[in-house]
Amino acid sequence: MNRDLIQEDIRKIWASLDGPQRRQMFAELDQVDAEELFLELAAADQLELLEARPLLQRRSWMRLLAPDDAADLVQCLAPSEQSDYLGLLDEPTRREVEALMAYAEDQAGGLMSPRFARLRPDMTVDHAVTYLRRQPLQSYETIYILYVLDPQQRLLGVLSLRELLAARPDALISEVMEAEPVTATPGLDQEELSRLFAAHDLSSVPVVDEEGIMQGIVTIDDIVDVVQEEATEDFQKVGGMEALDAPYLRSGFGTMLRKRAGWLTALFLGEMLTATAMGHFEEEIARAVVLALFVPLIISSGGNSGSQATTLVIRAMALGEVRLSDWWRVARRELAAGLCLGLVLGLVGLLRILLWQSVFATYGAHFLAIGMTVAFSLVGVVMFGTLAGSMLPFVLRRAGFDPASASAPFVATLVDVTGLVIYFTVARLILKGVLL
Amino acid sequence: MNRDLIQEDIRKIWASLDGPQRRQMFAELDQVDAEELFLELAAADQLELLEARPLLQRRSWMRLLAPDDAADLVQCLAPSEQSDYLGLLDEPTRREVEALMAYAEDQAGGLMSPRFARLRPDMTVDHAVTYLRRQPLQSYETIYILYVLDPQQRLLGVLSLRELLAARPDALISEVMEAEPVTATPGLDQEELSRLFAAHDLSSVPVVDEEGIMQGIVTIDDIVDVVQEEATEDFQKVGGMEALDAPYLRSGFGTMLRKRAGWLTALFLGEMLTATAMGHFEEEIARAVVLALFVPLIISSGGNSGSQATTLVIRAMALGEVRLSDWWRVARRELAAGLCLGLVLGLVGLLRILLWQSVFATYGAHFLAIGMTVAFSLVGVVMFGTLAGSMLPFVLRRAGFDPASASAPFVATLVDVTGLVIYFTVARLILKGVLL
Repeated sequence: MNRDLIQEDIRKIWASLDGPQRRQMFAELDQVDAEELFLELAAADQLELLEARPLLQRRSWMRLLAPDDAADLVQCLAPSEQSDYLGLLDEPTRREVEALMAYAEDQAGGLMSPRFARLRPDMTVDHAVTYLRRQPLQSYETIYILYVLDPQQRLLGVLSLRELLAARPDALISEVMEAEPVTATPGLDQEELSRLFAAHDLSSVPVVDEEGIMQGIVTIDDIVDVVQEEATEDFQKVGGMEALDAPYLRSGFGTMLRKRAGWLTALFLGEMLTATAMGHFEEEIARAVVLALFVPLIISSGGNSGSQATTLVIRAMALGEVRLSDWWRVARRELAAGLCLGLVLGLVGLLRILLWQSVFATYGAHFLAIGMTVAFSLVGVVMFGTLAGSMLPFVLRRAGFDPASASAPFVATLVDVTGLVIYFTVARLILKGVLL
Repeated sequence: MNRDLIQEDIRKIWASLDGPQRRQMFAELDQVDAEELFLELAAADQLELLEARPLLQRRSWMRLLAPDDAADLVQCLAPSEQSDYLGLLDEPTRREVEALMAYAEDQAGGLMSPRFARLRPDMTVDHAVTYLRRQPLQSYETIYILYVLDPQQRLLGVLSLRELLAARPDALISEVMEAEPVTATPGLDQEELSRLFAAHDLSSVPVVDEEGIMQGIVTIDDIVDVVQEEATEDFQKVGGMEALDAPYLRSGFGTMLRKRAGWLTALFLGEMLTATAMGHFEEEIARAVVLALFVPLIISSGGNSGSQATTLVIRAMALGEVRLSDWWRVARRELAAGLCLGLVLGLVGLLRILLWQSVFATYGAHFLAIGMTVAFSLVGVVMFGTLAGSMLPFVLRRAGFDPASASAPFVATLVDVTGLVIYFTVARLILKGVLL
């Protein structure tokens, strides 16, 4: 029977259980299956399982973990409990884990593994191959990239195992290594780190401090997680909330509520300005109630076009396709797009009013003036929505905020208030002496 | 001077240029720099550069490309031109490229490379190491995972180079290989492929057809691109448009406009129902114009809470955290969240009206009835928005559509119409005999 298939069943059942059921299932698995499952879990889940066990049993589970995973787990604990868990590790690993914990989880230093394969520059290729074959290779994060260090642990160069195998057996490592490789500093943010991987087509990167001392390596499989995580954060922000930082069904109800209520209330307070704006035009509405009918149609069109523009720009910024200096190119492009889109919607709106008028005679004698008011307002509102939606991410980034906070609802709120002013101003101009 | 640094400058300058400037810069680079730049470009950009060159020069550039990249480039061409470019390749590569072109770009078969390292099951470990050292290793996509095939090219097992180096030299490959490895079919969609990598923590996966014949391998660096691409698609869809399929500043103005105008018009047509709904309550508005003032505030609150719910669920579905069968868990959770969020907004709204009344006496004698109408409507609208936003992705997926089409603007449109009905119904109940 195929182990991977069994593991897949285990994972499926596991995903459908709640906390106490999981603890029971975990206790009933045989050792190999339990270990494999344990290693795949997120740090918070690993911790939950460990906490249900007596202290002495925790030791062997903690020692199963690679140093970077152990650091993640310990960082889930309250500071007062961390030393208990750190004490379960053997001495060298404990020191490695403590070094990793000095960095935030979303920095290169927090993502790196200290377990990489080292070579000396004065070894021959043949000697290096023999040396590697004698190492306990499973304990390295990767052996496919080899790091050449001097006795002070300064990084001199890198060499792929592929190149090592293809090199002349009596050549020196210093002759065949690539000197001055791409490196990252421990403090590098994970989003920039993922761009570094993309720009240089890397499969791993050495992390090196200011003095050139090698600290660890980050491998591309960690970058896949980083990319997913960053996309999820931006996704949730653009939906008009704080990022959850945990899978949806796993995050606590209270935490989730808080992260949604904050933005929702802020948007609500902003949206209150629409009531104020409408209040200024109360007299117009009283004289021509028909004007009120188109308010939702007009402001939502501005919001929708703004939502398109802002998501386009936020994503392009996250991928590095659009930079701050591109703002003018983007503004021109979006202004043109807004004009075209506004004309399309304006025309559709006008046709709708003419059609309803000819069938139901809904809008009375001044239907054409009303139609023109709606059409011109739509052009103005959609242009404003597109421009505001595309520029807000630039403004936020410039001011040092996350551009993804220029969420679709944020832009919609901004556009709603302005949209009302545009609509009623156009109405005053066109309907003066007709209906108003 | 460090080559990587020069390349980085070249890339920066390149990014700031337009088409003709790029062609000129490319022509002026020395051969090594030009080749390195060329290999990093997207297929469409590579093609643009090639098309500016005489036919004979295109040959050497085409032959620089790995088969999967060549296939991507050829697929950018009109079908009538494809054979010209295919003819530039050497015969075996051309056959490989044609095989790859049989699959869509977003399937495992379209992503795979046919250049993997093969071993025979009856080789010894030592023999395999010697064999590998004699191969032109640069021509493989990876040599870190080795594929054990029978003479009919059926996949028998896989073996990492790490395991090979650590194995007993006289063991047979068939003894040390992992039999029954995880595989993908050529038709597997790239989104599911990326989940396969995540679930099994893979660095590469063999692609095998129905008869077990090995077709190629997909490596994790391709998966990083897939993950970014899928996130971008979902991001743009959730913003209320079709996915662009190209970087924002690179996509043609007309194409971009079409992809935005389609959804925008559809949403506009849907939003027209608000005018119809408002029309039904025209009499109420005429009698109590004050009701119109809160229309934008109330419907946008429904839209915003719906936007939060839909982005949460869409992203959780894309990551595989939430499945179709979870709909009831999500519905209960969101209904509870909607109630809490609605109560918060209702309370804030009520306080706002009481405050304005006590300072400006804006709302006349019936301010409390108006305040209660707004507060109760907000609870109803936010609950409906949250529920609609969270359930729409399930409905779409169930019906075979992309759940990401449940965009924030789509949900907002849905909620706007219902929100109006809720608001005016509550108003009729509370204000009957008071203002109405």
